Amino acid sequence: MEERVYNFSAGPSVLPLEVLEQAQKDLVCYPGAGCSVMEMSHRTKSFENIIFPARDTLRRIMNIPDDYEVLFLQGGASMQFAQFPMNLAHQGDTLDYAVTGQFAGNAFKEGKHWGKAVCVASSEYKVFSYIPRITEDMLDSDARFLHITGNNTIFGTAYHELPQTGSVPLVADWSSGILGMNIDVSKHALIYAGVQKNMGPAGMAVVIVKKDAILEDIDDVVPTMLRYKTMIDKDSMFNTPPCWTIYMCGLVFDWVERNGGVAAMEKRNREKSAVLYDLIDSSEIFNNPVVKKDRSIMNVTFTLPTDEDTKAFLAMATGRGLINVKGHRLVGGCRASIYNGMPMAGVEKLAECMRDFEKGMRE
Amino acid sequence: MEERVYNFSAGPSVLPLEVLEQAQKDLVCYPGAGCSVMEMSHRTKSFENIIFPARDTLRRIMNIPDDYEVLFLQGGASMQFAQFPMNLAHQGDTLDYAVTGQFAGNAFKEGKHWGKAVCVASSEYKVFSYIPRITEDMLDSDARFLHITGNNTIFGTAYHELPQTGSVPLVADWSSGILGMNIDVSKHALIYAGVQKNMGPAGMAVVIVKKDAILEDIDDVVPTMLRYKTMIDKDSMFNTPPCWTIYMCGLVFDWVERNGGVAAMEKRNREKSAVLYDLIDSSEIFNNPVVKKDRSIMNVTFTLPTDEDTKAFLAMATGRGLINVKGHRLVGGCRASIYNGMPMAGVEKLAECMRDFEKGMRE
Repeated sequence: MEERVYNFSAGPSVLPLEVLEQAQKDLVCYPGAGCSVMEMSHRTKSFENIIFPARDTLRRIMNIPDDYEVLFLQGGASMQFAQFPMNLAHQGDTLDYAVTGQFAGNAFKEGKHWGKAVCVASSEYKVFSYIPRITEDMLDSDARFLHITGNNTIFGTAYHELPQTGSVPLVADWSSGILGMNIDVSKHALIYAGVQKNMGPAGMAVVIVKKDAILEDIDDVVPTMLRYKTMIDKDSMFNTPPCWTIYMCGLVFDWVERNGGVAAMEKRNREKSAVLYDLIDSSEIFNNPVVKKDRSIMNVTFTLPTDEDTKAFLAMATGRGLINVKGHRLVGGCRASIYNGMPMAGVEKLAECMRDFEKGMRE
Repeated sequence: MEERVYNFSAGPSVLPLEVLEQAQKDLVCYPGAGCSVMEMSHRTKSFENIIFPARDTLRRIMNIPDDYEVLFLQGGASMQFAQFPMNLAHQGDTLDYAVTGQFAGNAFKEGKHWGKAVCVASSEYKVFSYIPRITEDMLDSDARFLHITGNNTIFGTAYHELPQTGSVPLVADWSSGILGMNIDVSKHALIYAGVQKNMGPAGMAVVIVKKDAILEDIDDVVPTMLRYKTMIDKDSMFNTPPCWTIYMCGLVFDWVERNGGVAAMEKRNREKSAVLYDLIDSSEIFNNPVVKKDRSIMNVTFTLPTDEDTKAFLAMATGRGLINVKGHRLVGGCRASIYNGMPMAGVEKLAECMRDFEKGMRE
């Protein structure tokens, strides 16, 4: 086998090696099924024994209350930008958004296709370097929800405390935080997350929705496939689900549970991010512009003095098998995404590379 | 490794063994990438070297004209039921449908959420046992399209000749026919297909759309993610695509090309289906109710005299490692789905089982 690198991609991103090895072993012939999971009819006991335990494990590790449904849906978080408003609001209703980055902005823009979308808070004027404090009085009293992006991958920020929304339901995109940090599901009306960061391979979103948050009298124009009720009634199998993706996510959920659950993941991610933030804060060339209390523990962003320095550093990192450290094409700089699948050894190798680069610059 | 069975599932369904073995070999570490395809950022050269050749190979093997776009989209064919009307028609427009089975009916019902959906032909009163002949004069002159389901998996029928639609654009769901039989793309405004039958693992649809068939002034309520233009402009990568599914489909496309292309696939599927239809037609206990000229070469349906006989036959088949021969839950009976991945050896084993069962009944 070729050598594996340390992959700091923001998503799709690194998966636990033992999960990949398990999937490889069973790929051609899943035990007891006589075929690959990729060939398995979703209407069989074999597949029910994959999808239902996966859902149950996710319920356990996220401590999801009984009055919430868990759905496995296609289209990723970007599809949810359109889908959750259709299920929680009528066309033309008031929808509140906090804009804390690129994807939060995309969700806000998508809301305008459905309702009267209002931006109630934004950190754009400070280049999204902090999380605005949101209180109930800032929200529209008739808003169907307040939408936030829990962890902002591009700018490296996160809500470490949820907004106070009073009677306005809270909807959150937790794509890059889910399973990597503790999230109190009961404080949300709806959580969604693309799976390709902390949960599995790309091609699915997990939606966790409080049953009574969904409109009873949904607008007629909403496609059957975009109605949560369609999928709730059919256990996410109204049509053929992305079976292999669900299987892989199930393996990851098991791995999280086996390794101490989400609390243990958060502890590890805090330790990993601290290694990098401590280095950056004591460095003379690396800089992180984020307000300290709002720093993400999943995506550590940092800059160097010049674009030339950035290029040289990225080349050095790649040469050492540390890939995808380049910042998002919209902001430049560097970014290390250190989701659950990234071991401390990878972070330490990156830190070593950063120290060596700084030393080299001083010489 | 455990023994593989012959899997006659209608979808997800059997994949070529050598494709599975290739995927298994490279699962943990894709050559040259240092990581799994499941961990690969879609914004890398490594992934571009997967998605673009996959698309190009599909263009070659289906002989897709240059004025058509090829898209890889999430949500399967069921999502397309809502998506193609939104891209080809304004809300309230007239939409024509031919109803030749369950999924054709689902597409028709979904059309009602968007426009004035009209059923211009149906074979329901004869339990969908034939394909109605459709001519231009049967269509609404202001219809935005006529929608057909090219191959009907549940009832085992197929259009071996396309309807005459004159100036009305033809839209077809070819989920269970694509790559298994010759399809003249140039006669369609749009073709879509869930990939989980003849192309790869579940979790994606391929959409082949004539560029000038798409509305310029699409209705504002249509979500960004459901606009074909969004995905055309970004080479199917507006958001994170289902990377692994695309990779697997690419391996299957290569396999089809290596094995003589779609013409060779159709020849093999005709031979395979002939083995079963010939047996059924000369049998005293097996029956296929479909009008001969409309028989599918992908899904061979058959019944036995009683439910008890059906149960006994299915048990015998399963015992011989021939699985998922049970008919769709809506119609009962038996069904052998013999897509490209099913070798003649599997079909012959099924035929042998059928002959043995009939012999046993006579004794």
